[in-house]
Formats: sequence, C-alpha cells, structure tokens
Amino acid sequence: MDAYTRDQTYAPPGAPAAVVLARDTAEVVTAMVWASEQRVPVVPRGGGTGLAGGATAVDGCLVLSLAKMTAIREIVPQDHLAVVEPGVITADLDRAAREHGLMYAPDPSSHEISTIGGNLATNAGGLRCVKYGVTRDSALGLEVVLAGGQVVRTGGRTVKGVTGYDLTGLFVGSEGTLGVITSATVRLRPAPAEPPSTVLATFGTLAAAGRAASLIMGAGLRPSLLELIDRATLRAIDEWRGIDLDTGTAAVVLAQTDGPECPAGELLRWCEEAGADFAAASTDETESAALLDIRRLAYPAAERLGNCLVEDVCVPRSRLPEMIERIERAAERHGVRILTVAHAGDGNLHPLFVFERGRAGPPPPVQAAADEVFSAAIELGGTLTGEHGVGVLKRPWLDGELGPDTLAVHRRIKEALDPDGLLNPGKAI
Amino acid sequence: MDAYTRDQTYAPPGAPAAVVLARDTAEVVTAMVWASEQRVPVVPRGGGTGLAGGATAVDGCLVLSLAKMTAIREIVPQDHLAVVEPGVITADLDRAAREHGLMYAPDPSSHEISTIGGNLATNAGGLRCVKYGVTRDSALGLEVVLAGGQVVRTGGRTVKGVTGYDLTGLFVGSEGTLGVITSATVRLRPAPAEPPSTVLATFGTLAAAGRAASLIMGAGLRPSLLELIDRATLRAIDEWRGIDLDTGTAAVVLAQTDGPECPAGELLRWCEEAGADFAAASTDETESAALLDIRRLAYPAAERLGNCLVEDVCVPRSRLPEMIERIERAAERHGVRILTVAHAGDGNLHPLFVFERGRAGPPPPVQAAADEVFSAAIELGGTLTGEHGVGVLKRPWLDGELGPDTLAVHRRIKEALDPDGLLNPGKAI
Ligand SMILES: Cc1cc2nc3c(=O)[nH]c(=O)nc-3n(C[C@H](O)[C@H](O)[C@H](O)COP(=O)(O)OP(=O)(O)OC[C@H]3O[C@@H](n4cnc5c(N)ncnc54)[C@H](O)[C@@H]3O)c2cc1C
Ligand SMILES: Cc1cc2nc3c(=O)[nH]c(=O)nc-3n(C[C@H](O)[C@H](O)[C@H](O)COP(=O)(O)OP(=O)(O)OC[C@H]3O[C@@H](n4cnc5c(N)ncnc54)[C@H](O)[C@@H]3O)c2cc1C
Repeated sequence: MDAYTRDQTYAPPGAPAAVVLARDTAEVVTAMVWASEQRVPVVPRGGGTGLAGGATAVDGCLVLSLAKMTAIREIVPQDHLAVVEPGVITADLDRAAREHGLMYAPDPSSHEISTIGGNLATNAGGLRCVKYGVTRDSALGLEVVLAGGQVVRTGGRTVKGVTGYDLTGLFVGSEGTLGVITSATVRLRPAPAEPPSTVLATFGTLAAAGRAASLIMGAGLRPSLLELIDRATLRAIDEWRGIDLDTGTAAVVLAQTDGPECPAGELLRWCEEAGADFAAASTDETESAALLDIRRLAYPAAERLGNCLVEDVCVPRSRLPEMIERIERAAERHGVRILTVAHAGDGNLHPLFVFERGRAGPPPPVQAAADEVFSAAIELGGTLTGEHGVGVLKRPWLDGELGPDTLAVHRRIKEALDPDGLLNPGKAI
Repeated sequence: MDAYTRDQTYAPPGAPAAVVLARDTAEVVTAMVWASEQRVPVVPRGGGTGLAGGATAVDGCLVLSLAKMTAIREIVPQDHLAVVEPGVITADLDRAAREHGLMYAPDPSSHEISTIGGNLATNAGGLRCVKYGVTRDSALGLEVVLAGGQVVRTGGRTVKGVTGYDLTGLFVGSEGTLGVITSATVRLRPAPAEPPSTVLATFGTLAAAGRAASLIMGAGLRPSLLELIDRATLRAIDEWRGIDLDTGTAAVVLAQTDGPECPAGELLRWCEEAGADFAAASTDETESAALLDIRRLAYPAAERLGNCLVEDVCVPRSRLPEMIERIERAAERHGVRILTVAHAGDGNLHPLFVFERGRAGPPPPVQAAADEVFSAAIELGGTLTGEHGVGVLKRPWLDGELGPDTLAVHRRIKEALDPDGLLNPGKAI
C-alpha cells in the first residue's frame, strides 16, 4: 500500500487501513457509504503528483484512488466539450482532443502523470493558463460523490448557466475535502491553427526579466506561455544537461504566442525595452520544443541537488519584480539555496527551497526563509498558493491569508457537506 | 417605498417594513445585525433591473438598497483591475476603465441602469460575454456582509489563487441569498485597439440563422458579439422605428469582431455557408452603432406590444437551431406570440412571451408554452436560465433541472451561511 500514501512532497504519511482502486462511480459510492458508516476518513487520490501533501494518507484512512477510472466517455467536437472519468491523464485528454482539431488547455508541467480529477480538485494551473485560464475555467460540470455516498451532478453542457449556486466552481479546488469527483464535463478549445512562435530572452538582472513579463502583460498582449527562469535554476539545468549558459545571464524569459493577436515581434520589443541582453523568436518546432524543455527540466534539475520545498506564491502581476527581489533577499538572509521559476505572466512564482536529502522536512533556515516569502507575498497583495493548493504543507499560513471570519465560512461549508469530517481531514482548510 | 419593491418583472411584490439606502459597509452591517436580531427578512437590491423577480420585496422585509454606494475606489491600470462599490452603474465602470485604455467587459443590455452588485449577484451575461466571459469571469474578489453582520473578504488581486474554497464564485450568482456584496475587485481588460467590424446577415429561415451561429462558433472563431434576432422581433422594431425590413427575412445575425484572430471575412463566409440572403461587414462606427441599436431595441419594442414574460434558456451551442424550432412549435401550438432574440454564440435564447397588459401574470397558454420551452431546453442538454437567474419566477422549474439531491446540497449551503433564512427568502434556490 505504501505507493498510495504519499504525493510528491516530503509530508509524512499516516498508515492507511486500506486502499480502494475504484473502477466506477458505484464503487466509489460503496466505499463512501462504508466509510461513513464506519467513520473511517477517506483520502481521495489521483496521480499522486501533488505538491502540497493533499493526497498524503492519514492514519487509519481509506485511500480512495480514482486512477483506474480512465475512460474518455465522450468528445463532442461541435460543442467543444468532453466528458471524462477522473483518472484520465491530463495529456491523454489533450491528445484525444487534438484528433478533432481541439485541445484541452490546462497543462500543468506534470501533465503526463497527473489526472483530470486531481487537476480539478486542486484547480491546477500550468503553462498555457496565462492565455486559456486555470482548470476551473475549463470545468463545465461535475459528478461528485458526497461523504454520505449521495451522487450529485453540477453544471452541465452549456457555456453559460445560472440555475442555482456555482457548485462546480466550489468543488473545483476543494482538494478532496467536499466530495469525490467521479466524472467531469470539460471545455475543449480550438487548437491553434499554426505552430507557435517561441521567444527566448536573456537578462543580466532578475528584476529586468520580471519587468519584461510585467510590461508584456501590462500592454495587454496575450501570450500563450510566459515563463521566467532564474540563474540558480539555469545553472542547475546547465550542470546536468549542458545548455551553454552565458555566465552573465541572471534570468531567462520564455514566451510563446499562438495567434495573430499577439505578434512575436511585440514580445521581443518589450523584452528589449526591459533591457534584454539577447532576444530572438523561432517558429521551428524542434527548436521550440527544446526551449520549452529547459522549463520542464527545472524541477528534476532542482531535485538532483537535494530535497525541495516547492513554493507557489502569486502576486498581482505588476509586483512580480518586487516579489523576486524579496525571494532573493530571503535566500541571502537565511543562507538558503532557492531556485526560482515562475509562470511570470500570471504573477505566479515557484521558489524551490533546496535542502539536504534524507531529512524528514525542511530545516529551520529553510522554514524561516519560506515564512519570509509568504509574508512578502501577502504584503504585496498576493496569495500563498497560485495553483498547487494548501494541502497539509501550507495550512500553518492559512489563517494569515484568509483571516478568522473568512476561514469560519469555509468551515461552515465543510460542515454542511461533510458533517463528520471524513473527507480528507486535516487538508486544505 | 413603492419604487423599491419590484424589479422589471410582473412578479407581485410584498409590502416591505422599511427601505434602507446604505451609504457604506458599516451601514449594511448595522442593517444586517438589526434584521438578524429582529428576525426580519432582507431583500438586497441594486438597480432593480432584474428579470427574474430576485429583488422583489417580500412582506415585512427590509429592502436593502446598495444603489447609493457608487464609488469607484481604485483603478489599477498596471494590474488590469478595479475596486468598486456595489452601486456603481455597469456602463460607468466601463467608461472609467476606457480612460486607461481598458474596459470592463460584462455588458448586459441593461448596462446603463444595472449595478455591478446586481450583475455579480446574478452573474450577468451580456453581448460581449461570448468572447470575454460572464460576470463571474471578471470577479477577482469580494467583500460580503453575511446574514449575522460579519464582514468577510474573498479572493484578492491576483489572477490566480487557490487558498481555500472559491467563495468568490459561490457568492457570484447567489442572487442575494448568501450575503450582501459591499465591494468587489474586478478584472479589467485591454480595450481593443481598433474599432470593431460589424457583420449583418439576413436569412430566409430561422434555422439557417441558428446554423450560421453554430458554424461560426464551431469553427473556433471568437467574435466579440454574436446575436440573433427573429422575424417577430424585427417586425416589432420595424413597426416602431422603421428599419426597412425585407419581408422575406426570417432572422438577422449580428456579429462583431474586435481582433485579428477573428477576421470579419470569416464571419461572412460562415453566414453565406449557412445560406444567408445578404451579408455585409462595416467598420464605420456610426453604422455599427446603428446596427447594434436594432438589438438593443428588442426589449422596448416587445414591451410596446403588451406585458412580457422574458425567458432565458441556454443550450449547448450546436443545439441552437433545434431549440429555435422548439420555441416556434410551442408558439404555434399554444397560439402565443413569442419574439426571440439570442446571444447565439453562447446558445442563450431570450424568447419574449407577449401577453395582454394589465394582467397580474401570464395567462395559461403563455404558461403552457413557457413550460414547453423549459422542457425542451432541458431535453437538449440545456438550462432554464443562462444569465437572468432563478429569482421567484423560475423556482417552479428548479427541481426539474437540478433534481432533489443537488438541490439538497444548495439548501445545506444556504443553511450553513444563513441559518435563519433571512437573506432574500423564497428566491433563487
Ligand atoms: C513535476 C511536477 C510539475 C508540476 N507542475 C504543476 C503546474 O505547472 N501547475 C500545477 O497546478 N500543478 C503542478 N504540479 C502539481 C500537481 O501535478 C497538481 O497539483 C495536479 O493537479 C495533481 O493531480 P494528481 O492527479 O496527481 O492529484 P493528487 O496529487 O493525487 O491529489 C491532489 C489533491 O486532489 C485530491 N483529489 C485527487 N483526485 C480527486 C478526485 N477525483 N476527487 C476529489 N479529490 C481528488 C487529493 O485528495 C489531493 O488533495 C506539478 C507536480 C509535479 C510533480
Ligand atoms: C432592458 C434590459 C436588458 C437586460 N439585458 C440583460 C443581459 O443582456 N444580460 C443579463 O444577464 N441580464 C440582463 N438584464 C437583467 C438585469 O439587468 C440583470 O440581471 C442585472 O444583473 C441586474 O442588476 P441590478 O443592479 O438591476 O440588480 P437587481 O435587479 O436590483 O437585483 C438582482 C438580484 O441581485 C440581488 N442583488 C442586487 N445587488 C446585490 C448586492 N449588492 N449584494 C447581494 N445581492 C444583490 C438582488 O437581491 C436580486 O436577487 C436586462 C434587464 C433589462 C431590463
């Protein structure tokens, strides 16, 4: 059972009583009815790729894996939608949509290993969400099994609808604490007609790179991807794979555009305006893919260096350069190695705090630096977590962001839907 | 007090105990605390332009008008957001944003008389939402006063954020039944650089016009407006204002594009493909405005003919032609005059059922025809209401769309946030 007790974090798992690999909604109902009769906590689980400890087992729980429910039940090209089971791998849905000239837009970097159910439960972001929105923006309707075993349906197949409350939006991002998602109707979008143009720009300072991202978004351009990679990350990738890194480069901005409303020339212009040392665009597919690989290598490159505490702060877009500075300051002050990659177009930063392998959790200096980064994000009008979720790891800071009254509303809703507190206890709220 | 008891529907109002015109959040809190101590129901109210009876007074209630809270507190151009009070008139916010090269996208046809608070509470749609989304898609954060008088804040100033549940999305569209919105942080968008191109196409059959809309959206084009107006509506407008209507015209499709990713030529091409008798594009601003006026005249033209029951069904986009046929059939079968306008790009139709002025409500044949239209919408995978809300008028059909289990979840959430049931009782759910 061990493989089903953890996600991608160091969060220490409890010992589950059992693991259920559900094959259909009826089996999920059976499990939930049993669990509620026996008062056994239930930890729903998709791909186990989470970065917040959301799928980490608790003592005596039932781990309820949806990973075997992998059917893409329908693709309706004329209505740009699909009906899928929760265990479908994110990239598989995208590939299936492409056969109809469509795409499934949300693309967390984990798209080859994460599930649609997990993406919905965490409201996952990704590279393309700067243009196409987060997972919630692609969720039209859900089938959800509640704590007591009742099956409810939310939303539907229309792009608009205001009958009743937005339960779809409420279950999305609830990290398995309100119900188990057993099916979803999701929005597909037309796949871009032409291959994207990819822009790469290098900067001598991190602040200048942050400024480039702020300028691009401030100008109202809609790139389909706008990422930032800092020197520490670039160096880790270079040491591992050799990417001919110029020693003067403090940061790289990587952008893509997939439509005429966002000319690559405009992206270049703003990078230069922000002080890029080098900036070029390419429409060659192999070259584009190679450039994107640099971004995708960030996590594994960091993990070669030790254990990682992956953070996920998000700030109003114009505060990105300031937030970057605050991360650098925290790293220095506490003598901690931090690699930063960012979905810069969304103001969403992932500082990766590296620490010694083998430790149960981050040592005090890393904790102190992370604390400082959280405080800075809140101070700049931002949030603890842009896309990874709260899970167990970010709960200590929850009250600091939401405050007691707003948190109380969360608890009232949780109690209304799961009065015995059996669904993923100790997570998210 | 009479002026504060009704919205734009025939729904018969109760007699309120008092009307409060709140000037700030503190006054809303005072009102809510008093009401909760005295167990007096509260009916929140914005512009009173609702089309579902949501703001209709109930006997002995406090009408709580937010219409005097009209400050635009902040516009932050670099972050594309504004912070506003709930009484701000929708079009006023858009005009204020334009001074910074930005726009506030949601534009219900009532934008000159509806409020942002009312738009949020109903999750209003509008003409531009086919491209820019509904009001919820522009809501970043809220300040809400709960039934007991507690003030809670949801969301924030970032474009992404997953700390806690999506309370912003939950309050949006809750029609004043979960809390009173006293402030909102909303998303602004870059105003299009060039004036839009407007396309007008006429069709000999309604089905062909519906097909044109389906084809345009199916092709993945993103017009900034895509409306359909049927013969009955055109005739009513013609009789009133004289628009030189060709007697062979069964329907008009009106489209706009505001960006290079949706060439006007493509819109024309699909209209012709669907069998348009005539199709032309114009970039002249005066001409465009005149064409749009035809659409905006639909409601007043219908109201000249008698009282109107305004419906609001929404179906998956590809089912639009079928839904139009079903409306025509219902009109015939029950001998009822129905004028239909549609936000065709969203599959959202507004059949206007005309009945004799002076009656308290729609006569039995109109009710029967409306019933048939609702059933057809549900049958085609659609919903009762795409944007106007449930209010009091659509409650009889609620159970038919949501079913008892999903409705029960709504009631549990309502009870969790408003245990005494004081906020807008008898509405929405
Ligand atoms: C290399 C790497 C890159 C990543 N990049 C990104 C990124 O770019 N953007 C991003 O947002 N995230 C990213 N992540 C984090 C992670 O992949 C996402 O959070 C993803 O959505 C989790 O999906 P999963 O199927 O693995 O869910 P799990 O980790 O199994 O579970 C996540 C949470 O969802 C709940 N859950 C899972 N399935 C269901 C269900 N069917 N019903 C109810 N609750 C359920 C669990 O209880 C848990 O709380 C990355 C992770 C890795 C390892
Ligand atoms: C000519 C005309 C055209 C229209 N066109 C459209 C259209 O294209 N799209 C569309 O969606 N609608 C349209 N409508 C309907 C209506 O304008 C919208 O529903 C609008 O959002 C209502 O705003 P309001 O300020 O008038 O709210 P009201 O009618 O005053 O109230 C509507 C609901 O919101 C609640 N409410 C209001 N303010 C608050 C607050 N601050 N906090 C909590 N609850 C509150 C009320 O209790 C009520 O349930 C149209 C109406 C007319 C008359």
